[in-house]
Order: sequence, then structure tokens, then C-alpha cells
Amino acid sequence: MTDIDDQASTQTSTGWLSPEDLELVRANVPTVYVDAVPVRVDALGNVTEVGLLLRVAADGTISRMVVSGRVLFGERVREALMRHCEKDLGPMALPRVPPNPTPFTVVEYFPNPERSGFYDPRQHAVSLAYVVPVEGECEPTQEALDLMWFPPDEAVSDEVRSQMTGGHDRLIRLALAHVGKLP
Amino acid sequence: MTDIDDQASTQTSTGWLSPEDLELVRANVPTVYVDAVPVRVDALGNVTEVGLLLRVAADGTISRMVVSGRVLFGERVREALMRHCEKDLGPMALPRVPPNPTPFTVVEYFPNPERSGFYDPRQHAVSLAYVVPVEGECEPTQEALDLMWFPPDEAVSDEVRSQMTGGHDRLIRLALAHVGKLP
Amino acid sequence: MTDIDDQASTQTSTGWLSPEDLELVRANVPTVYVDAVPVRVDALGNVTEVGLLLRVAADGTISRMVVSGRVLFGERVREALMRHCEKDLGPMALPRVPPNPTPFTVVEYFPNPERSGFYDPRQHAVSLAYVVPVEGECEPTQEALDLMWFPPDEAVSDEVRSQMTGGHDRLIRLALAHVGKLP
Amino acid sequence: MTDIDDQASTQTSTGWLSPEDLELVRANVPTVYVDAVPVRVDALGNVTEVGLLLRVAADGTISRMVVSGRVLFGERVREALMRHCEKDLGPMALPRVPPNPTPFTVVEYFPNPERSGFYDPRQHAVSLAYVVPVEGECEPTQEALDLMWFPPDEAVSDEVRSQMTGGHDRLIRLALAHVGKLP
Repeated sequence: MTDIDDQASTQTSTGWLSPEDLELVRANVPTVYVDAVPVRVDALGNVTEVGLLLRVAADGTISRMVVSGRVLFGERVREALMRHCEKDLGPMALPRVPPNPTPFTVVEYFPNPERSGFYDPRQHAVSLAYVVPVEGECEPTQEALDLMWFPPDEAVSDEVRSQMTGGHDRLIRLALAHVGKLP
Repeated sequence: MTDIDDQASTQTSTGWLSPEDLELVRANVPTVYVDAVPVRVDALGNVTEVGLLLRVAADGTISRMVVSGRVLFGERVREALMRHCEKDLGPMALPRVPPNPTPFTVVEYFPNPERSGFYDPRQHAVSLAYVVPVEGECEPTQEALDLMWFPPDEAVSDEVRSQMTGGHDRLIRLALAHVGKLP
Repeated sequence: MTDIDDQASTQTSTGWLSPEDLELVRANVPTVYVDAVPVRVDALGNVTEVGLLLRVAADGTISRMVVSGRVLFGERVREALMRHCEKDLGPMALPRVPPNPTPFTVVEYFPNPERSGFYDPRQHAVSLAYVVPVEGECEPTQEALDLMWFPPDEAVSDEVRSQMTGGHDRLIRLALAHVGKLP
Repeated sequence: MTDIDDQASTQTSTGWLSPEDLELVRANVPTVYVDAVPVRVDALGNVTEVGLLLRVAADGTISRMVVSGRVLFGERVREALMRHCEKDLGPMALPRVPPNPTPFTVVEYFPNPERSGFYDPRQHAVSLAYVVPVEGECEPTQEALDLMWFPPDEAVSDEVRSQMTGGHDRLIRLALAHVGKLP
């Protein structure tokens, strides 16, 4: 989970916080996050590929990870989901945010890596995780270095898992289980 | 639930049954069905309209209803879902069958209308119900007389509900609840 | 949504905030909440009754409402759910928090009542909503004046709905739809 | 998936079929099944153990497997779920069938093992799969030889997986993913 918004933020009235206030918040209450697992689907809706970004993760490593970011004050969850997808996948990705507001799982990130297996050194975040089919052309933007697509069996392979941190490898498996494609 | 396939069917090897055998089956075991609630969504995935077919229902009345039909021997659930959507909504409807195989509810139709509130005089059917966004042009085909789109509040109005039988009005409410749009 | 914890809170290290800091947080970021709809179930798991508390709601009215409260820093979602159920229903309620961490819906409360239809004048809260079967004896504690059990059709009746605010009447309908018991 | 009912059945009026008619049905239409993954949960609802039966599987091998069986004509899905749990786990198991009728996944068993990865040489079955917490004492009955409880990490270990056939090892992983306990 990285969130470049946070550095750039200034206006509290629109949900942006100064770095100091964001620090205070993060030290005291859980943050609301969304995680989006981008997927390619075939004509019948079967997931054929999972998209993984290459970027600087919350722990400072360069890792493969999903789309992730916080929900701003006043923002609807699906607006946040769309905003982060567009920010990370580019304006032509055409993400299909599902009509159902229920996430496929709730990911609880803690500063203590033992707490839940999902880890964020900066904060306790409660993240609503969605599988988001994308139909358009993706070009990773802003801080992402790369976006690669993996078939389900590769996405959960030891090689790809070794490139993920913070529990994102487990999140991919939960997402694939949700769509019935866990190898 | 109507199913024109049944009348036309002959080849058991492909899952089609003779009318006599279908009768025997229907008198003895539950039938596997799919129900699809066609919806229009906006760019953020919010359901804006629900599509209702006008057709001869299982009980012989002309009713507003959702896409519905049985799963054939050897057929995947999502293949059945796509087949029935194309049959009822036309070849240009572009239904987006969700990647998750889990239905939003399981509808149990019984010949006894008191059993579950979902009624089919012909059979006991266990139906997997999905909300299916459609993006293309719909033209009702085969036995459907008409397809109309209703905003959520109209779809659950007394007027529209009075045109539905067999519990399909309740199915619409369950679908709208699932997508967070029950008025 | 009321939360007596907030007034009593002092220790930030355990997730409690001073009233001033809570104010700052609430003015700037969404708060993580849980909502629990207490239900009675029969031996087959069918929901037979919905429990509604009578208490001072977020808007100051005395209303019928579900169990609701925030997730503290460092707390797991299911710990928060259990804590609020015990706080509101008493220590002998025996709530059966479901093994699946996915809520049946995500409720977005906003200070602006038009934003989502779910209203909290104090904050923007993102609430994970669960149906929680309770098997033991309930005695409303702390600030709740009363707990009453309603069969599904009464729980969604005009009379009961008129005693609810902030969208909790809609939440009940979403919960009943989820368990297939929306009348 | 084994189903001793089928051999013993005679009365079509109560949903039982003669072996010949069951054969005809199975050769022509998909059968409605339920799968139940028995689990032990702690006080907070966390899954701590998965129960696996040892019995003769559909393919004739002695395998570890979940509770599984068909839905009879006229039977509600949750009645079938309870009946099969009691049949396989004994009368004191106290299964807690979830109030939500939606399965965590839909398992499609085919006579062709390549079709979906879930295999039943006898039939095409569409199975609604549930995670069912059991609170009482289990004693495997009828054709089950044994019931053993495994912590999540053992339940998905290579050793236990090698004792499962027909895709039940994958079903266990999907169930554990659903409850957020996939290792």
C-alpha cells in the first residue's frame, strides 16, 4: 500500500490532510482503504490474468502489488476505487467496478506483521478488497514502475510470490479463490 | 421461468431431453436453474436501471420477469447464464457475467406456492441468481414480447410488482439489496 | 450509530482518543465502523426475529437501531464486532460472529443526508455490516433503553420503520434480503 | 461425493428415486448437490480447524472429503444441508447452518475431470458449498470410516491433499480463503 496523495495533500476540506495531521490520524485510528485486484476476463467472465504493479511498497521495498489507497473524507467507496484504479492503471484502463458494494474480503493491515499477516509499517488500515475487471489499455502511472499480467497459476507461483510483501501474495490467492480460479 | 428449449429439445447427449423424459425428471429431482437480473450501470458501477422482460410466465400469465432458464447436462453455470442472456436479450446485449461464480441468492422454486414464496407449477427448481450488467443494445428475442428498463424505485413500485408472478418481484428486491440500491 | 466509548476515551495507545482528537479525526478522515444486526435463528438457520435497540441515535433522537460502533486502533474487525455486541446486548448474549470476514453490505454514513441515504451528523463513517445470530439471553446495557425482537415482516413495517433514523430501516431491509427473508 | 441415500431409495413421492431412474436422471440433467465444510471456530468466529471425513469417494477410492450429498425433490437447500451434516457427523454435531442462503462457491462436478477440475464419474452435479461451524460432538456415521480435525495449515498441506480426490482439496482451499484463513 503506497499513497502518493498523502504527500501532496493540503486541503482538509476536500479530504486531504497535512503530513502532520495524517501522522496523528494514522497513530490513533484505523484508516479506511480500498484494494483492487485488476483482472482480465474472457467473454464468459472467467478470470484469465491478474495484473500486478511494480512499485515502492509501504515497507520501502520494490514489490509487485495490487492497486491500493485510502478513502478520502466525503468520498464514496466506489469513487475511491475508481480514482485509485485510474491513478495506477492510467485513464484508458476502463475498470469495471462491480455493482455490489461488498468486498470479496476485508484486509486488516497492521504495523505489527504478526497481527493478521497483512503488514503496513505506517498504519492500521482496514481495506475493502475488490476484484476489478479492466477492459482497456493500462499504462501504469505516477509512482508505478511497471504493470504485468500473469495467468492465475503464475500469479500464485513461488517466483511471483517472492516479489510481494505485506501479505499481497495472500491477497492474490484470496481473490483467485473468490473467482473460483485458485489453482 | 419459461424455457423454450424444453419444447425444442431432442438430443439427450447434449443435455436436451424429450418432453416425456423432462417430465419424469421434473417430477422426481430438483432442476438446476439460473436467474439473471439484467441491469444498466453508470461509470462507477452503480445500478441505474433494471431490465424486465414481458413474457408468458411458468404459470401461464403474461408477466414481467427476469432472464431465467435451466442448466443443461455438461454445461458450465456461466455458459448457461450467457446462453440465456443472449437468448432473451439478443446477440448485441453484451452481458457482463461476473467473474465470481457465487450467486447473490439461491432461489428455490416449488410447485407449492407456500413452500418458499417462489413458485413454479411445473417443477422444483434450485436457481442461482446473478445480477448481470449489460452494456449493449438489447432486443428481446424468441418468446419475449418486450423488454423495459426501470429505475430501482420504479422496479419495486406496487404497479410493477403487480405485473410479476412466481416471486420475481421479491427476486428484484433481493437483487437491488445486493447492489445496495433497494429504495 | 452512537458510541459511548468516545466520551470515556483517554488513552491513545490503546486506540482511545481524547474528545478533541476524535473531533479532529472525524473532521478529516472516514471512521471505520461495524454494524451488527442481531437475529434469532431456528434450528435450520432461518432468521426468525430481528433485534432492535432503543437508544439515543447519532442525530439525538430516541430511535430503534442496530448494534453499531467504531473499530479501535489495533483492533481486529471481529474483536470490535464482539465488543460492541457484548456492550449493547449484555455479557450473556452469546453472539455468533460469522467465520467469513466479508460484511453483507458496506454502509457509508455521511454528515450530508443526501450523500448515500445513510446519515451521521458527526462524521463520515464506513461501516462493515454483519448479521449476527445471538443464542443467549440479551439484556441491553449501558446507554440502550430497551431491546425488542421483531419477526421479519414487522421489522420492515411502516410502524417500526418510522421509529428508525439515519437509514437504519434500510439497513434492516438489506440484512433481511441477505438472509433471504425480505418479505 | 458419495450418497448412500441413492442406493436405499425407493419412493419417488418423497424425492427418492429407483436406481434405474436415478441413472436416467444423472445421464441427462445436472443434479443439485450441497457440500458442507465442517469447521470448528473460536469465540470470535475464527476458524481453527477443518473436519474431513474418511470414506469411499465417488471414484471408489478411500479419501478424505467434506460432507456432500444431493438435494431431494421438495427439500429446501438448508434442510438438505442439515440432513447431510447429521447423517455424516452424527446427531450431536450441532451444525450451525448459516442464515445466508448464498454458498461461498458453486462447485461444478463433471464426469470429465478436465471440465472444471471437480470430478464425479457418476454425474454432472452443481453443488452449493457452505462452511458450517459445528459446536457439538461429532461421530461419523453410516459409511464414513473416520472424521479428523485439521488446523488450516495442515488441511492444505501436501500430505492431506494427497489423500483427497475429485477436487475436494481445492474446495478446502476455497473454503479457507472465504473465511480469510488460507495460509
